[in-house]
Amino acid sequence: MAVQLLEVPGAVSKSLSGRLGAKLDSRAVQFFADYQQSHDNFLVDVDGNEFLDVYAQIASNAVGYNNPTVVKASTSNEMALALSNRPCLGVYPGAHLADNIDSIMRIAPRGHNMMFPAQSGSEANELAFKAAFFLYQLKKRGLGAEWTQDELESCLRNEEPGSPKLSILSFKDSFHGRGFGSLSTTRSKPIHKLDVPAFDWPMARFPALQYPLESNVDKNREEVESCLKEVDELMSTWRDPVAAIIVEPIQSEGGDNHAPASFFQGLQDLTRKHGALLIVDEVQTGFGATGSFWAHESWNLREPADLVTFGKKAQMAGYFFGDKTLKPDKAYRQFNTWMGDEARLIVCNAIIDEILEKDLVTKVSAVGNALYNALEKLAQSYPDRVRNLRGKGAGTYIAFDTDGAAALCNKMKLLGVNIGNCGKNTVRLRPMLIFEEKYIPRLIAALVNAFKLPDSVQPGFATF
Amino acid sequence: MAVQLLEVPGAVSKSLSGRLGAKLDSRAVQFFADYQQSHDNFLVDVDGNEFLDVYAQIASNAVGYNNPTVVKASTSNEMALALSNRPCLGVYPGAHLADNIDSIMRIAPRGHNMMFPAQSGSEANELAFKAAFFLYQLKKRGLGAEWTQDELESCLRNEEPGSPKLSILSFKDSFHGRGFGSLSTTRSKPIHKLDVPAFDWPMARFPALQYPLESNVDKNREEVESCLKEVDELMSTWRDPVAAIIVEPIQSEGGDNHAPASFFQGLQDLTRKHGALLIVDEVQTGFGATGSFWAHESWNLREPADLVTFGKKAQMAGYFFGDKTLKPDKAYRQFNTWMGDEARLIVCNAIIDEILEKDLVTKVSAVGNALYNALEKLAQSYPDRVRNLRGKGAGTYIAFDTDGAAALCNKMKLLGVNIGNCGKNTVRLRPMLIFEEKYIPRLIAALVNAFKLPDSVQPGFATF
Repeated sequence: MAVQLLEVPGAVSKSLSGRLGAKLDSRAVQFFADYQQSHDNFLVDVDGNEFLDVYAQIASNAVGYNNPTVVKASTSNEMALALSNRPCLGVYPGAHLADNIDSIMRIAPRGHNMMFPAQSGSEANELAFKAAFFLYQLKKRGLGAEWTQDELESCLRNEEPGSPKLSILSFKDSFHGRGFGSLSTTRSKPIHKLDVPAFDWPMARFPALQYPLESNVDKNREEVESCLKEVDELMSTWRDPVAAIIVEPIQSEGGDNHAPASFFQGLQDLTRKHGALLIVDEVQTGFGATGSFWAHESWNLREPADLVTFGKKAQMAGYFFGDKTLKPDKAYRQFNTWMGDEARLIVCNAIIDEILEKDLVTKVSAVGNALYNALEKLAQSYPDRVRNLRGKGAGTYIAFDTDGAAALCNKMKLLGVNIGNCGKNTVRLRPMLIFEEKYIPRLIAALVNAFKLPDSVQPGFATF
Repeated sequence: MAVQLLEVPGAVSKSLSGRLGAKLDSRAVQFFADYQQSHDNFLVDVDGNEFLDVYAQIASNAVGYNNPTVVKASTSNEMALALSNRPCLGVYPGAHLADNIDSIMRIAPRGHNMMFPAQSGSEANELAFKAAFFLYQLKKRGLGAEWTQDELESCLRNEEPGSPKLSILSFKDSFHGRGFGSLSTTRSKPIHKLDVPAFDWPMARFPALQYPLESNVDKNREEVESCLKEVDELMSTWRDPVAAIIVEPIQSEGGDNHAPASFFQGLQDLTRKHGALLIVDEVQTGFGATGSFWAHESWNLREPADLVTFGKKAQMAGYFFGDKTLKPDKAYRQFNTWMGDEARLIVCNAIIDEILEKDLVTKVSAVGNALYNALEKLAQSYPDRVRNLRGKGAGTYIAFDTDGAAALCNKMKLLGVNIGNCGKNTVRLRPMLIFEEKYIPRLIAALVNAFKLPDSVQPGFATF
């Protein structure tokens, strides 16, 4: 029986795209969604196409379309107040802010009891960098030491000593955002970075593990040791002191690259050795998708990570910390007009309620195992199509390499599945936390059909 | 009769502040607001204190607390969908996005027909910088020229030629945000910048006008010429080419510093001479407060400004542009996960509806004249207290210098007025667009009373 292909984008999407494109750069638009009709794991477009969504708004939808708990929060009186009177949270917070922050702190990483809200993962990472730089200089200056006149004046000219030459170390293939600071630590793809001035900050190799892990134990251990050695050397020799290392638990945009706990433990040791901080970027990995609330929980670090940033599935962003010295020595240093958005804090808390009440993290762990097993079988049937399957035991955070990953993901849309790629040739699974085992056969069947379709069969949206 | 002083912060605020402060840096909190009870021009706190609010959430509330048009939009079905299903606007926009963008474009500056949404003024400015850098390199490379292998590889290492050494020129005392790129152009106060690594970008003097303007015509003209000459020299000699100038129509955080149209016309000429762009930062001045929708309308520029950024009163942020070559040559270059927040786009459109339907910009112009006249009279009675009164003809965007401006603003809270300071010793008026003439006597009376109170009478919140 011939496979039925959807028309993507459909006529309504195409017409809207023309209108939007006249005023906004809409070249990355794949279709226009009908959010009224979308539900749970299914994204419906304006032409009535229904997609099983295992990409979930670039890994940012945690609990499904029109989740009743989130809808309820979105239509609450408190929400209307937050939207209509947008408070500056740092100066005139509303009566509910203390409750809302308490509520967020339910899911704070181990050892962390403070947080700072932000609006994007990129902003969260930059705020974490600033916190690290403040602390680095505080230690250098000595606790309680006054700022010198030279520091106060030179910083306004972007000159030393007020604007110090310090750096953040990041890893090859990492993604930490697109601001000028966060982009300086992003090393994923030229399309993210080309033509933008960047800070002269160090980059180390991230372990390139070989799969299957069982048959590459020695090689992978050597690889981890070699990468840690490079970090140690860079921290010893880089012209500008390294105030912090930033690392993703699983490099996501860069190709779903995993590393063992020993690597991250080694990084923490190196930060201690060199007087730097460890920033764990959980913007994409956080909020349950890896089968634990925070991916870095599985590392069993000797001490808590210094700063943990989050975003995406939280529907807001920010960073957590535990060490009180990371709170700047003076008010207004870490500050901005809105300091996040209370409307999005309310949504975030509804999502946390839903995750905790429905025990979704545990469920992700179970469905992740089933999904991994199904993909392992698929890999046995299509060894050339499904290579380097990874993410075993990491919830639904599963990926594999395949030639023409982008083209494959495009074809999947014609087959009613929204799925994303990353890195050079990686298909990454990012289902929502409410993904269920019953959808696995549909996903696998679509992959099989997509393997059979020639790459020339592509949707009508611009592809890159 | 003795003046009755409010207790600020009251008991409830103090208790909430203790709770919040355990988890969030709340040292800048002045009081907790009761947004349910706040209305129009009045901010009510959780202890029942009512403040005439001429600071308006750091100049970000345009149409008043619990404005019915905004409340209606905040409780609409479309809003619930945007909140519950946060779309990635660049990939899976909702059915209403084209309408919402059309609606925003009603207020686009002259000559601008495209926009890019953002979440904060800081982000908007950085996106504008990126657009400027992309175009600068496109022109250098030649239209249609392919990226070289060297460019593609070097940008991942933050090295030339892929990460070019280009700069943005900004002005002494300017404020453009707190990200690593925007902060590199901010030159207002050490508290904003100290200890944060910065790009080595050029800073020019902003005209320091002398008041009253009528009696300083020659001096001020010479000052403008001298500042333009410095910009010209910096653009000719700075080690890294200047891709854009960013300037505020009125330097706001830096002390409400005004400059005449001739200065901005001169800047545009210099951008043309040196192959750079002019970015007008209307984050604080935009959306009507100066008596025109955009403050830069009054400059009568020969050509439209290249990029105009906005934020604050829009309750979202972004940049407008008209030149199609400012749309990057490839998709995904100017991109991020959410590309703004459709929930805030909806609020922004309700605010625009309200401004246009009630003709608020015209009203601001009228009430601004009355306010200026009242302050001019006050300056005659208290010449030592009200110095360098400025903002005549600039709507309600009025300011004056006074010794101990911060202490004065604090005392004003005890007298039931929320007002803000900026720069070294400047009181800035930032009433909402719905401010009415009938409130002027209350404001003036509070100022007179505050002048009489010793500076030692201060509210109980931390002051800086």
